[in-house]
Amino acid sequence: MSNTKFLQGNEACAEAALYAGLDFFAGYPITPSTEIAELMSLRLPQIGGKYLQMEDEIASLCAIIGASLTGHKVMTATSGPGFSLMQEALGYAVMAEIPCVIVNVQRGGPSTGNPTHVAQGDVNQARWGTHGDHAIVALTASNHQDVFAVTVEAFNIAETYRTPVILLFDEVIGHMRERLAVPEPGEIPLVSRLRTSVKGGVDYHPYLPREDGRLPMSDFGGVHRYNVTGLFHDMWGFPSDNPKIVHGLSRHLVDKINNNAHQIAMYREYHLEDAERILISYGASARSALHVVVNRRARGELLGLLELQTLWPFPSHIVREKCAGARSVTVVEMNKGQILEAVKMAVDDPNKVFLANRVDGVLITPTDIRNFLRVIQGKGV
Amino acid sequence: MSNTKFLQGNEACAEAALYAGLDFFAGYPITPSTEIAELMSLRLPQIGGKYLQMEDEIASLCAIIGASLTGHKVMTATSGPGFSLMQEALGYAVMAEIPCVIVNVQRGGPSTGNPTHVAQGDVNQARWGTHGDHAIVALTASNHQDVFAVTVEAFNIAETYRTPVILLFDEVIGHMRERLAVPEPGEIPLVSRLRTSVKGGVDYHPYLPREDGRLPMSDFGGVHRYNVTGLFHDMWGFPSDNPKIVHGLSRHLVDKINNNAHQIAMYREYHLEDAERILISYGASARSALHVVVNRRARGELLGLLELQTLWPFPSHIVREKCAGARSVTVVEMNKGQILEAVKMAVDDPNKVFLANRVDGVLITPTDIRNFLRVIQGKGV
Amino acid sequence: MSNTKFLQGNEACAEAALYAGLDFFAGYPITPSTEIAELMSLRLPQIGGKYLQMEDEIASLCAIIGASLTGHKVMTATSGPGFSLMQEALGYAVMAEIPCVIVNVQRGGPSTGNPTHVAQGDVNQARWGTHGDHAIVALTASNHQDVFAVTVEAFNIAETYRTPVILLFDEVIGHMRERLAVPEPGEIPLVSRLRTSVKGGVDYHPYLPREDGRLPMSDFGGVHRYNVTGLFHDMWGFPSDNPKIVHGLSRHLVDKINNNAHQIAMYREYHLEDAERILISYGASARSALHVVVNRRARGELLGLLELQTLWPFPSHIVREKCAGARSVTVVEMNKGQILEAVKMAVDDPNKVFLANRVDGVLITPTDIRNFLRVIQGKGV
Amino acid sequence: MSNTKFLQGNEACAEAALYAGLDFFAGYPITPSTEIAELMSLRLPQIGGKYLQMEDEIASLCAIIGASLTGHKVMTATSGPGFSLMQEALGYAVMAEIPCVIVNVQRGGPSTGNPTHVAQGDVNQARWGTHGDHAIVALTASNHQDVFAVTVEAFNIAETYRTPVILLFDEVIGHMRERLAVPEPGEIPLVSRLRTSVKGGVDYHPYLPREDGRLPMSDFGGVHRYNVTGLFHDMWGFPSDNPKIVHGLSRHLVDKINNNAHQIAMYREYHLEDAERILISYGASARSALHVVVNRRARGELLGLLELQTLWPFPSHIVREKCAGARSVTVVEMNKGQILEAVKMAVDDPNKVFLANRVDGVLITPTDIRNFLRVIQGKGV
Repeated sequence: MSNTKFLQGNEACAEAALYAGLDFFAGYPITPSTEIAELMSLRLPQIGGKYLQMEDEIASLCAIIGASLTGHKVMTATSGPGFSLMQEALGYAVMAEIPCVIVNVQRGGPSTGNPTHVAQGDVNQARWGTHGDHAIVALTASNHQDVFAVTVEAFNIAETYRTPVILLFDEVIGHMRERLAVPEPGEIPLVSRLRTSVKGGVDYHPYLPREDGRLPMSDFGGVHRYNVTGLFHDMWGFPSDNPKIVHGLSRHLVDKINNNAHQIAMYREYHLEDAERILISYGASARSALHVVVNRRARGELLGLLELQTLWPFPSHIVREKCAGARSVTVVEMNKGQILEAVKMAVDDPNKVFLANRVDGVLITPTDIRNFLRVIQGKGV
Repeated sequence: MSNTKFLQGNEACAEAALYAGLDFFAGYPITPSTEIAELMSLRLPQIGGKYLQMEDEIASLCAIIGASLTGHKVMTATSGPGFSLMQEALGYAVMAEIPCVIVNVQRGGPSTGNPTHVAQGDVNQARWGTHGDHAIVALTASNHQDVFAVTVEAFNIAETYRTPVILLFDEVIGHMRERLAVPEPGEIPLVSRLRTSVKGGVDYHPYLPREDGRLPMSDFGGVHRYNVTGLFHDMWGFPSDNPKIVHGLSRHLVDKINNNAHQIAMYREYHLEDAERILISYGASARSALHVVVNRRARGELLGLLELQTLWPFPSHIVREKCAGARSVTVVEMNKGQILEAVKMAVDDPNKVFLANRVDGVLITPTDIRNFLRVIQGKGV
Repeated sequence: MSNTKFLQGNEACAEAALYAGLDFFAGYPITPSTEIAELMSLRLPQIGGKYLQMEDEIASLCAIIGASLTGHKVMTATSGPGFSLMQEALGYAVMAEIPCVIVNVQRGGPSTGNPTHVAQGDVNQARWGTHGDHAIVALTASNHQDVFAVTVEAFNIAETYRTPVILLFDEVIGHMRERLAVPEPGEIPLVSRLRTSVKGGVDYHPYLPREDGRLPMSDFGGVHRYNVTGLFHDMWGFPSDNPKIVHGLSRHLVDKINNNAHQIAMYREYHLEDAERILISYGASARSALHVVVNRRARGELLGLLELQTLWPFPSHIVREKCAGARSVTVVEMNKGQILEAVKMAVDDPNKVFLANRVDGVLITPTDIRNFLRVIQGKGV
Repeated sequence: MSNTKFLQGNEACAEAALYAGLDFFAGYPITPSTEIAELMSLRLPQIGGKYLQMEDEIASLCAIIGASLTGHKVMTATSGPGFSLMQEALGYAVMAEIPCVIVNVQRGGPSTGNPTHVAQGDVNQARWGTHGDHAIVALTASNHQDVFAVTVEAFNIAETYRTPVILLFDEVIGHMRERLAVPEPGEIPLVSRLRTSVKGGVDYHPYLPREDGRLPMSDFGGVHRYNVTGLFHDMWGFPSDNPKIVHGLSRHLVDKINNNAHQIAMYREYHLEDAERILISYGASARSALHVVVNRRARGELLGLLELQTLWPFPSHIVREKCAGARSVTVVEMNKGQILEAVKMAVDDPNKVFLANRVDGVLITPTDIRNFLRVIQGKGV
């Protein structure tokens, strides 16, 4: 039996989740993410896991939060409108530090928008959709091999940092079929749930960090009794409005992610070493961008591509370093410039950063990008 | 009978909404916004308006969207968790271009967070909380006279641009009592609903702009039959995935707001004309910032304050112009630097922009700000 | 018998003085320097040297000046109040060009101040405490190995340039215990007294320079008779108010030190090669600064430390060169910004220089410094 | 009897002190300040005041500190070597907040230096001579009318801020004779000792500020018993090493002076309004500088003079403002550039600041200054 499959990106994501140890999935179908739920409903019962079809997206996220607390690796999948509905529960997972993975296969928005067509317009929502200061992890990919890898990594990050992780794919990646070489078990290292060594009958502090900063968990409903809340809370999990505790937890929730931006940063680079002009892209857009770079290099032009897989925390240090010597940096994305702003903040000179985009539901093409580059290089149309 | 009242900021907001012509309010109580609903439930029946107590915040926003379509001036009020729940319906209002006002009296987040204490952490959520590319209007104020003025202006902007407008107050402003001189009727100009001149029985195109770009409305359920949808749509309101139509509407939704940033920009300035160091603040934080500026000016220091009332669309042109000559710009806010980033993007040299903040549920004090300024000016503690 | 000792910084200083050839010490005890006198009173008689307990600090400095003139290597030790009392005699040593070493183990000032707690407030006094234009050498260190090294170097500089040298330690360095590997004899080169080759009975000019600019000495009370005075004087040491002689000696006293700033500059650097942000520190403060740098480098931040051991003559050339590419330079010291001003004068852009300090008698901690850096980097609290 | 006198600057200073209400003087004679003590020994007994000839300068300063505490207006006078001896007691007056005036008529230094000749080399010593962080007030003047005025102001400042004030004259000003029109009583306003309104038998807190920040005094040895110390202390005057109290008092001692730099700044300006090139000078040097400006203006050159009377706290704001438009700024002083450094720190571009000086005991002449200006303007010699 072969290890190579020919499948949709959505299916690659589902396979990767199972590889990572997922055994609980709750969801509500929505185009263009439905294939993920579909495959889950088939595969989970086969391995003794649980698939729950919920009444809506709010319930879906709440269900996996609960299941995670009881010790399971969990995921849900949706698209923009469903992701908007999940914003309140997402904040709860952030505050209570619940490991979980949320897939948003992007389509055109806002609102019901352009359901069957591609977009990358939910990047800033992933960062800022729930209320209050917080940090978030969001990953993406431009091909099925990477969809598999970042999905496994999403589970690893969720466990390592006790945080929700968002997988921000897009309609083209989700529905396109290409080959996936499924890794052997053990080929990609997995991070297991860090469980407390505190015995039953002994006090367990759910928010008391170990020396290395990590917070061991105890399966909820198991041998320890403790409180979980969306309110600011102390090390016992009990609510507090003491300013020192509020400040401490507020900083902790942001610092545990942002201070580890180096570890969380995933990216690919193509011909950056001597690039005078750099493209930065991600997801389906990066496929067209890579095509342009390969094509232009063949003609001797010093063009390079930085493909981001980690979108949040934004890998500013990587972008700054890679773009230091470039004459221009062009962000290729399918929205009105969301990663563009992050790139401008990261580089030394924001005036050298340009946008090549498309916002009409059609995948940006190599020809589109080449036309943008002509203008950016001062060559007109 | 005197026109001066001594009241809470929440009550000033409610009074202003009535002054602006509000006759429909639907909501679900949540600290620290509840007084708005409370006063509405008392006052609306007295003037023949409607107050609806809904089952949750999703229903609340949906109810006022419907009421607006039928010709009413409408509002709902909530705080962070409720605002997160509203994100999906908010996108619908953006896409279908429904005038409505949504008040978010901010408390500490994420999640249920720090309910009875102040924060300004929902600024970026107001901008990016719903999925997909879009633009938004968000206003705030630092005193009750301005709460009244920006609330009236929120209704005017909602009608002028057919857009939801967010009023982003905070717990201190909402609950603090101070004097309000209620303007005489007619003292603040009001923008009425622009209704179509198309007669009944004649085709009405709900999304066909007049020569001046505005879209006249026809009370839904009235003499015209037409379609309203959250999908991308043509001038009849019928769904379309034609790339040209998608591109056109996508740009329209953003441009109608962002291209009018000058008109929408509301702000106050104090001693900016010769300021070497500038504070930028808003909401309750601006009260402390103003105190510092007045105090330091008395000592001859060239300190000034730019108080923003319009947060989105961000008044970049104002900020850039006012800060051109300053040696440092310090953003005073109660979050981890949300307006800070917008200011950095706006000014010539982002390295001269600093943050003076507090994130523990306590109002930032003049002393806090002075201590930040000492460090920023290189004076240590 | 091992060469490694576990001792206080004050004891390390005393051991180093003996290593450097000290055989005369006069002093008056004052916290936090007393251990130096204490150890001297024990050790000097053992090696045939002289320890004199004087009636006050004025007498102490005068005694070692006299002893130096008769051919001895000499030192006294005190803290702030005693150092203030020494200012008049210090000027005499400068004018008469007497090699001597004066230790000031700093405590909180002004006046009797905060005797048992740390401070670094005497940096500018070391530079400018005595009246009239002059130059001075002042060294410091942040650990006992360096205390040993700079103390030996102080004696070498005193002999090389015929000048008083100030060792400006602080209470934490003086009282903290840590390991010192005492160098083998000969491991650190020593500069001996340069004695005149002029024979007895032949005219000796005490202030007539050799070709290399150095002034050979003759043990006072020995074979030559000559004049020593605090007045401006000619090459015989006799007073003169001739403007040319006054101008010449006035310049000589400053130039012999400041023109050799390169040779006198001692410093350590950590991770400066690619540092975007630089800390400059010295003494006990540099211990905390180094902790922050090591910790932040582990997270990938481009932070570096320049630790100054020579404070005066200020190593402007080193500071300018090392800080050329930095986005910010933060001086970490325990005063209100004394070295800060020297750094501002040295770098290209004084606006990029900040102060991280503490002035309450408590050692500045790594956490303090990190908090300053957050504000300086515009990140707030 | 005429109000106009023809006298030495030292005598003008003594007359002004009496005008200001001085009734206690203690001193030890030293060239070139002796005439002040001489005149005091004659005049004080006539008006029922006290003149004390002390055994040295340490005793002199200690005596007037004690007399001030008991309710008198006090002064001592000395020159460089005596001023060095006073540094320890000066710190005590700073810490205990004792109003007193110390005259230093500068001669050539360091050490006994050039006793009968002019210099301005003690400017930085006045600022930094005593140990520990502190602030200081130092005033000077270039003619006898101004000597009188700044001396009266010195007493006013000493009382207003409870601080020692240094009068930093020089040998030329001290010994030169010119006319002085002695003001009528009441012509210059006087600041009296602010005495507590707390009655005897009621607790008096010597370091508890009134609402306006001032600290009322009670004549020591009178109806209240309280503690005075050179240690950091609380509002009762009792020693404390509590970090909050140390930090608070440390900042208070600096802020009460530096935050009032505007009020304390005294200066004269000549032809600055359109000056392309500016001289900054003080004391005797300013006489030559003014001569050059008057002479050059007659030839149409856009030269101006800023004459500083307040040297510390350095009037940075005045210097910055006045020099904003100048092409070059030349500091004229008789040392190696002490005010030069302060000017460089104050202006926008330190590269446009030059030094015209003399350090040989001879008054800098207009010709000297003109020769410097030729070089500074690129005209060579």
